Amino acid sequence: MKAAVMGYGTIGSGVVTVLDTNRDVIASRLGEPLEVTKVLDLRDFPGDPVENKLVRDYQDIANDPEIDIVVETKGGVEPAFTFVKAMLESGKHVCTSNKALVADKGAQLIRIAREHNVNFMFEASVGGGIPIIRPLLKCLAGDVIEGIYGIVNGTTNYMLTKMANEGSDFDEVLKEAQDKGYAEKDPTADIEGHDAQRKIAILTSLVAGRQIDYQDIPTEGITKISAIDMKYAAAMKRVIKLVAASKKTGDTYSARVAPLMLPEGHPLYHVDDVFNAIMVHGNMLGDGMFYGSGAGSLPTASAVVGDMVDMARHVDKNIRLDWEEEKLILADPGDDSYRYFVRTSDTKSDIEKIFDSPEYIDAGVEGETGFVTGEMKQSSFDEAAGKLIDVRSCIRLA
Amino acid sequence: MKAAVMGYGTIGSGVVTVLDTNRDVIASRLGEPLEVTKVLDLRDFPGDPVENKLVRDYQDIANDPEIDIVVETKGGVEPAFTFVKAMLESGKHVCTSNKALVADKGAQLIRIAREHNVNFMFEASVGGGIPIIRPLLKCLAGDVIEGIYGIVNGTTNYMLTKMANEGSDFDEVLKEAQDKGYAEKDPTADIEGHDAQRKIAILTSLVAGRQIDYQDIPTEGITKISAIDMKYAAAMKRVIKLVAASKKTGDTYSARVAPLMLPEGHPLYHVDDVFNAIMVHGNMLGDGMFYGSGAGSLPTASAVVGDMVDMARHVDKNIRLDWEEEKLILADPGDDSYRYFVRTSDTKSDIEKIFDSPEYIDAGVEGETGFVTGEMKQSSFDEAAGKLIDVRSCIRLA
Repeated sequence: MKAAVMGYGTIGSGVVTVLDTNRDVIASRLGEPLEVTKVLDLRDFPGDPVENKLVRDYQDIANDPEIDIVVETKGGVEPAFTFVKAMLESGKHVCTSNKALVADKGAQLIRIAREHNVNFMFEASVGGGIPIIRPLLKCLAGDVIEGIYGIVNGTTNYMLTKMANEGSDFDEVLKEAQDKGYAEKDPTADIEGHDAQRKIAILTSLVAGRQIDYQDIPTEGITKISAIDMKYAAAMKRVIKLVAASKKTGDTYSARVAPLMLPEGHPLYHVDDVFNAIMVHGNMLGDGMFYGSGAGSLPTASAVVGDMVDMARHVDKNIRLDWEEEKLILADPGDDSYRYFVRTSDTKSDIEKIFDSPEYIDAGVEGETGFVTGEMKQSSFDEAAGKLIDVRSCIRLA
Repeated sequence: MKAAVMGYGTIGSGVVTVLDTNRDVIASRLGEPLEVTKVLDLRDFPGDPVENKLVRDYQDIANDPEIDIVVETKGGVEPAFTFVKAMLESGKHVCTSNKALVADKGAQLIRIAREHNVNFMFEASVGGGIPIIRPLLKCLAGDVIEGIYGIVNGTTNYMLTKMANEGSDFDEVLKEAQDKGYAEKDPTADIEGHDAQRKIAILTSLVAGRQIDYQDIPTEGITKISAIDMKYAAAMKRVIKLVAASKKTGDTYSARVAPLMLPEGHPLYHVDDVFNAIMVHGNMLGDGMFYGSGAGSLPTASAVVGDMVDMARHVDKNIRLDWEEEKLILADPGDDSYRYFVRTSDTKSDIEKIFDSPEYIDAGVEGETGFVTGEMKQSSFDEAAGKLIDVRSCIRLA
């Protein structure tokens, strides 16, 4: 079985390493060797094992009748989409780790794959090496998924863990994460929640079977979380995590990416550092959780190779996958209900004019009041919070 | 698509409930309805929805050309084996929740299924509703699995959690678990570790691709764990869990079921009550963990229905599964290395004549000494422990 890799970066080179390291066991599971014969990249890699397999033009792969399986690890929507589409149309199976591509074009690529009796797989696009997409689609095929709650971004989870443990402030921890290589030079996609937004869009589309546009999901990152917020969280015996969530709401879903204060005993409470975890609630299963390394070259490449083996086993068969292109309109995010933690310079008597029975939190911070509201709709909370003199911080509770 | 259920007990009736409750979503995922038309059970169920679908003779199902999928939820090796074999030989796909059957006859049934171009699936046989077998076989198809560590028995985990939290003793907690329906009247299979032994035998066979006889796995239950042991564990900031584990050791595996003292920060540390969790270490993935309800009618039935849908999607195709009948000889359990916690009436000076630099644990217990050894081979430890006047307790550390 011959394969090609498009994009020889962190993940792409990891795929070559996994196939090489575990060559024998993969051959035995498959009944034949699985070999990368072409690698698409515009760069040269002198001395690298793939040096003589490099091609510059994706058509060289599309037109190679020996290649059945193509891996896309370039990232970004274009030119990845053009490349992947061409491969599927040439009758090749494609798997990818590219969440931007899957969130934007997943439904369309699934349709094209079906039309050409090949498969398009993307286990590595969410949760890195953590098996989540296959369990969700296959093991839970008999369940109605009523909720998904995930810590799906390792960079921000590392930062929040550091802030909680060391009392350090956001900027300080960001610099340290960048120095350690856990955060990119331009960390926007991680810290503003855009990465998590695409991942929860993919998962929610899969369980709904319809296209959910990631832009429709209200998203807050962690840039406003401060050392003072962490103090309050500690006083409440809670931790602050960036949670990407979606929930069945009538015939549709509501979805949101935002920092959440989680109580002790919550399954995501102990998920620290760069680890990811995704909790799923099925109407029959109840709660299930998947935990592991959400990023990194080899864990993510491991998931890509899992897809490659599955595709090699189904080389003559399209596996049905329900993610239609028709767009699903999400529920109004103003109708979501939460309890809210708020910090303000208002006095208690002013607060009590606006909110029913606030629960005050003493974290030993001078010159402000921290309190938790009762459960209320997002829209009602927004209206009420607008009446406060200021809102120094506002974090939802889970 | 028509199906039959053999055994209308807790799980079998759960399967009918899941198919009924989620009828529409399953039909839409499958492109056609999935309907149970026959139920094999010797009992009558007057007034039950399956009342008119009951059959007494398994041949009525084997000979029904309309039925493509059969669920086995009777439990036990016989007559389940005879029934399942007949179904596969009649060209029907079979899935089961029966760990005794799978541990004993899994490899053979997989061969028979392959010979008849049908599938034999058993996601529900380990971890109840927790997806573990499919992730292990599919998502980690590119990994060499180097270790599996699982809390796979809800009854004993509930009991150990109670003992740790309430200081109560084994017998007391067992009675309570029986009253609540978490432990059976004859609790032997759970508390002696036999249930966990079969489950780790299945998982290890799957990653090794060879038959592992469960009887070969050294197994200790929790019957010797006392309230005093829990006191020491607390003093060491550890918890005691019944862990079923296997580890790649050269060309084979070592496996064991035994209580383990886990340190804070261990992924299984916070797995409490009736919950199950299975940690997997892949040479590329690193650590991954699967967590959820390990038992119960609906969660387990949810896993069975996941298999049914997968089989319905592969009704014309045997999915390759490597579990050969050839027996794998496990590594000598005497070669396993651990640190050991020991309680004895020996004096410290006698202990130090036998063990190098023991670490003493003060749990405020009079009339005995508790200590932890350095890391040593099981065989060396057994020899050394034989020189103590008595061993009141001995628990391995993780």
